[in-house]
Amino acid sequence: MIIVVKPNATTEEIDHIIKKIKDHGLQAHVSKGTERTIIGAIGDEAILQSVPLEAIPGVEKVLPILKPFKLASWEFRREPTIIDVGGQQIGGKKIVVMAGPCAVENKTLLIEIAKEVKSAGATFIRGGAFKPRTSPYAFQGLEEEGLKYLAEARDRVGLPIVTEVMDPRDIAMIAKYADVLQIGARNMQNFRLLKEVGLCKKPVLLKRGISATIKEWLMSAEYIMAGGNHDVILCERGIRTYETATRNTLDLSAVPVLKQMTHLPVIVDPSHAVGKWDLVAPMAKAAVAAGADGLIIEVHSNPEEALCDGEQSLKPRSFKLLMDELRLIAKAIGREI
Amino acid sequence: MIIVVKPNATTEEIDHIIKKIKDHGLQAHVSKGTERTIIGAIGDEAILQSVPLEAIPGVEKVLPILKPFKLASWEFRREPTIIDVGGQQIGGKKIVVMAGPCAVENKTLLIEIAKEVKSAGATFIRGGAFKPRTSPYAFQGLEEEGLKYLAEARDRVGLPIVTEVMDPRDIAMIAKYADVLQIGARNMQNFRLLKEVGLCKKPVLLKRGISATIKEWLMSAEYIMAGGNHDVILCERGIRTYETATRNTLDLSAVPVLKQMTHLPVIVDPSHAVGKWDLVAPMAKAAVAAGADGLIIEVHSNPEEALCDGEQSLKPRSFKLLMDELRLIAKAIGREI
Amino acid sequence: MIIVVKPNATTEEIDHIIKKIKDHGLQAHVSKGTERTIIGAIGDEAILQSVPLEAIPGVEKVLPILKPFKLASWEFRREPTIIDVGGQQIGGKKIVVMAGPCAVENKTLLIEIAKEVKSAGATFIRGGAFKPRTSPYAFQGLEEEGLKYLAEARDRVGLPIVTEVMDPRDIAMIAKYADVLQIGARNMQNFRLLKEVGLCKKPVLLKRGISATIKEWLMSAEYIMAGGNHDVILCERGIRTYETATRNTLDLSAVPVLKQMTHLPVIVDPSHAVGKWDLVAPMAKAAVAAGADGLIIEVHSNPEEALCDGEQSLKPRSFKLLMDELRLIAKAIGREI
Amino acid sequence: MIIVVKPNATTEEIDHIIKKIKDHGLQAHVSKGTERTIIGAIGDEAILQSVPLEAIPGVEKVLPILKPFKLASWEFRREPTIIDVGGQQIGGKKIVVMAGPCAVENKTLLIEIAKEVKSAGATFIRGGAFKPRTSPYAFQGLEEEGLKYLAEARDRVGLPIVTEVMDPRDIAMIAKYADVLQIGARNMQNFRLLKEVGLCKKPVLLKRGISATIKEWLMSAEYIMAGGNHDVILCERGIRTYETATRNTLDLSAVPVLKQMTHLPVIVDPSHAVGKWDLVAPMAKAAVAAGADGLIIEVHSNPEEALCDGEQSLKPRSFKLLMDELRLIAKAIGREI
Repeated sequence: MIIVVKPNATTEEIDHIIKKIKDHGLQAHVSKGTERTIIGAIGDEAILQSVPLEAIPGVEKVLPILKPFKLASWEFRREPTIIDVGGQQIGGKKIVVMAGPCAVENKTLLIEIAKEVKSAGATFIRGGAFKPRTSPYAFQGLEEEGLKYLAEARDRVGLPIVTEVMDPRDIAMIAKYADVLQIGARNMQNFRLLKEVGLCKKPVLLKRGISATIKEWLMSAEYIMAGGNHDVILCERGIRTYETATRNTLDLSAVPVLKQMTHLPVIVDPSHAVGKWDLVAPMAKAAVAAGADGLIIEVHSNPEEALCDGEQSLKPRSFKLLMDELRLIAKAIGREI
Repeated sequence: MIIVVKPNATTEEIDHIIKKIKDHGLQAHVSKGTERTIIGAIGDEAILQSVPLEAIPGVEKVLPILKPFKLASWEFRREPTIIDVGGQQIGGKKIVVMAGPCAVENKTLLIEIAKEVKSAGATFIRGGAFKPRTSPYAFQGLEEEGLKYLAEARDRVGLPIVTEVMDPRDIAMIAKYADVLQIGARNMQNFRLLKEVGLCKKPVLLKRGISATIKEWLMSAEYIMAGGNHDVILCERGIRTYETATRNTLDLSAVPVLKQMTHLPVIVDPSHAVGKWDLVAPMAKAAVAAGADGLIIEVHSNPEEALCDGEQSLKPRSFKLLMDELRLIAKAIGREI
Repeated sequence: MIIVVKPNATTEEIDHIIKKIKDHGLQAHVSKGTERTIIGAIGDEAILQSVPLEAIPGVEKVLPILKPFKLASWEFRREPTIIDVGGQQIGGKKIVVMAGPCAVENKTLLIEIAKEVKSAGATFIRGGAFKPRTSPYAFQGLEEEGLKYLAEARDRVGLPIVTEVMDPRDIAMIAKYADVLQIGARNMQNFRLLKEVGLCKKPVLLKRGISATIKEWLMSAEYIMAGGNHDVILCERGIRTYETATRNTLDLSAVPVLKQMTHLPVIVDPSHAVGKWDLVAPMAKAAVAAGADGLIIEVHSNPEEALCDGEQSLKPRSFKLLMDELRLIAKAIGREI
Repeated sequence: MIIVVKPNATTEEIDHIIKKIKDHGLQAHVSKGTERTIIGAIGDEAILQSVPLEAIPGVEKVLPILKPFKLASWEFRREPTIIDVGGQQIGGKKIVVMAGPCAVENKTLLIEIAKEVKSAGATFIRGGAFKPRTSPYAFQGLEEEGLKYLAEARDRVGLPIVTEVMDPRDIAMIAKYADVLQIGARNMQNFRLLKEVGLCKKPVLLKRGISATIKEWLMSAEYIMAGGNHDVILCERGIRTYETATRNTLDLSAVPVLKQMTHLPVIVDPSHAVGKWDLVAPMAKAAVAAGADGLIIEVHSNPEEALCDGEQSLKPRSFKLLMDELRLIAKAIGREI
């Protein structure tokens, strides 16, 4: 950690800063430049990360050198993490595709959609039984009933299922049915929830918060991993910007940035990012070209009757056409779908 | 609700849109302009708000007319909400000031700070016993022990206390000690938590999410109110922008905007917004001048040893000077502190 | 245009609004709903776009129905615009690649780079002779000398050149040398400059402003087109967001959004968007997969000595490898490079 | 400047980085930590600011120590800059208020408004003769005719005038009439324009770009000052964020941040920030409380007929009431209006 000292700092202030560093067991390395004195703190930077150095008189600014996460970093693990879920590998050469309705609405419809996406080549079924909705007056999900339908869909079509968990009290119950637990964007910093899925044995799909930096997102992954659960899948789903032409702005550069920073697999949700079904296909193709390990896409047989996010759902036919295109792109970059 | 039809929509598509509106019990009012046909849906717009109209073929865009919240609006309640907490009124002529440390660290320190802020004129004590921290390795709060210290501070100095709740499972326990329950920015859309504090009898201080629109924020207030708890205090605490000179960007225009949209009281947290103690005073003054009903400010006797947010904490002496200045501003706008 | 009337508006206010609409030659269509009265203005909406309707007492909000641009819209032109520049077609099946150094530094280096990018398959040479720099103390470009080198590079390698114009006074001179005039992000709303390149016969590459909405960007294209120059190429180059891991956030969803809104060709600049050379390749591939008509990429033989943007420049060898990958992606989506 | 070396950098790479620093005449100070090697470059950091150090193999990141501007900093000038314009001091104890219509529309109206704002206590007249408009089809200003009316208004009411310059070619002509030259938000990085007003003898009011950081804004001030014109007034006018309830988000914390970074005076434009007349007053009051040296406010006798920005213009009566309130706030913070 580098501490830049104010130009008018007194000798007493500088000595006090040095003492502070030494009190925490690090060494202080002072370097007087032509315009500023800087102090390097040498040793375990993590110790200093929770010390409010900028509150010390004479300190102008503090520049951290190391990243604040460990378990998620390449320093901790030098091989890419590959997560095996019911025979499907997430993070390997094959790109996974998770598809299904935003919300589980009823059994017949769910199983119909599950069959369609399976036959188009999807490798996971997605569907929400607990739905975080901006309005208290909107459909909130079928809860455990919905989970049962998901489990039945899995049994019928033979694909693992991904579903969202919103409350620590539901984890045990949801984990009985689900293959992958999803943490939604709004809960990316619901630290209690993160801690408790960290104690769970199921892989966790962690969506990026709507205005989370990549670093904060990795810190949330770190929360889960610190509990012992290292099977975390990161999911880029668009960030909030000033642009209103799309629901959110899909930050595809997060994919190669994450590949440099972490060994964890990275997937992309184009549906929530763009918010309109006719923009999903180009963004899904771009995500694969950018190096994503997978996609999660909303598919509904009858979007105009959907209880949630109908505007952004593909019909099974459009999804099938997209899968055909994605296969060609995957091949072009040396992967497969 | 206004539905704008695509220029090339067929008669069948238009008829289908009209049928859809009527199926939900509203009337459809068609108006053919020179370049577009638009359809007005007349009746209870709330019914249509959860229908994915943009998924219907032929629909170009949908323009809502009404605000999506009710209980929080002036239509629902024509008088400003004034919340009485232990004799202190929030939302009245007098501006409330909540002050104290970011986190409760130990009893002696807390009581010392409580006495200082009381003597300077604060009307509430703030302090966190459960702390949401970006890093799993940072101090997470004293939990129930901290609540006990807060309760003792209340008894000793005679000011009501405000403290954060992060998990629905803790509400009952925290409500035993606290006078006001705080929902932090990261939990503004933790809908389970909102629903359950909505069933509680304690006033709720609802911080704005770090990238929440004012509308989304009011929808979160609506969640709480829909449960029966109408004592919601909105707290602006800075939003995330591209500017890095401050921790967040304090959106003070939210204060008069909210005053036009809702009867709920609005307070401002300058400490989290700016992130640096020496910027807190000008922003606190500006907040009062903009019409805020209160402030929540971090104060710590020894910021450089603080376990949380030391950089942005005022020392008791600076807080006292600020209170003196605030009194003059409050008087200048016809209020008092 | 739809005018939503305030719930408490008086009859006089409503009559006044109607009169205002009629005074501008449009018809007013009043519709009384259960909670709001709305007034539709039927006729040429463009006339009302510059009337401050929201300043009229009783008006709650104004909802425009039509897009504010005309010449750039599909309504004006039903075929995609294809621009022919020295035999290269921009906007056709073939994806164009513009490559070269950020700034023209000297003749030898420029010609060396031009040869390299040509042999790798680039179809245009890019290079700045006039450089907009954040600091007045940074290298500002070789000016006309640089243009001469560009012209010589064109003659030597046989590729058309793209270069930036920053000042209306330079247009005539730059147009003598350049094949395509570039308007940089910082000048996207330099309306004087837009008007004057609109009077010019050379195609214009219009970069998106760093925080321009897609609509504002198209309005800037409209400025150029309104002058008579319809050969405008839109270039997405990243927008400003809160994320600091990349220089800007590449908004690739702008590509399909623009394809729905305009007939103009759309290219992508991954170099300025990400700001780091090792993130350029994945974003270039993603841009092609998303449907871009071209790319503009910074290439430098010796980035660490570059006078501008060395961090984000590819070496010729990396550029060549990227071109090989891009060819496969282009083929996978039915196009070619 | 601090250079952080990649964990796996070779000795050759480190030596090469050191050589690079020395080649530019600075000293390299190597410090090997437990996890990273860092290299401090000691000497004139400005030299290295234009070297693409991040393009050098082995460099992980570069952390600048010093601010990139000089003339605008407190290091260059230790007293606040006070600019005298026709007897009005900008940056002194007295808060200046610039008021008038968005655009000059005709002589009679301008003089009427000028008289009204003068009698309410304004100290400058504002009015645009050259208008930057998003749409090429909107009113673009009266140009020189408008300047003549402004000059006449000055003569009639005895207040200096502020007006915008958009094109370097107009500077000489506008400077004949205007007392202060305004650079609009869209031209904050029109570097040619900045350079040329830097050669001019008139004070320059420099608006913040709609998504400019405070640092970039000060770099633009530096452009003007580097030309010899040190009379720069900074004007905060709202930044672009995701929030749509206001036209822009007024960043009032920029006021105290700038006061720490620069000796230049800082004023605030609440009208463009909020975009709605009924939000202007609270934000004007907040700006004064936050420490602004002045305000620039749009006033129009008949906003609903205004050719530009009618929605955000105060009527003279509201402006007068606001001035009365502002006087009380100014007094409360020890200043005057």
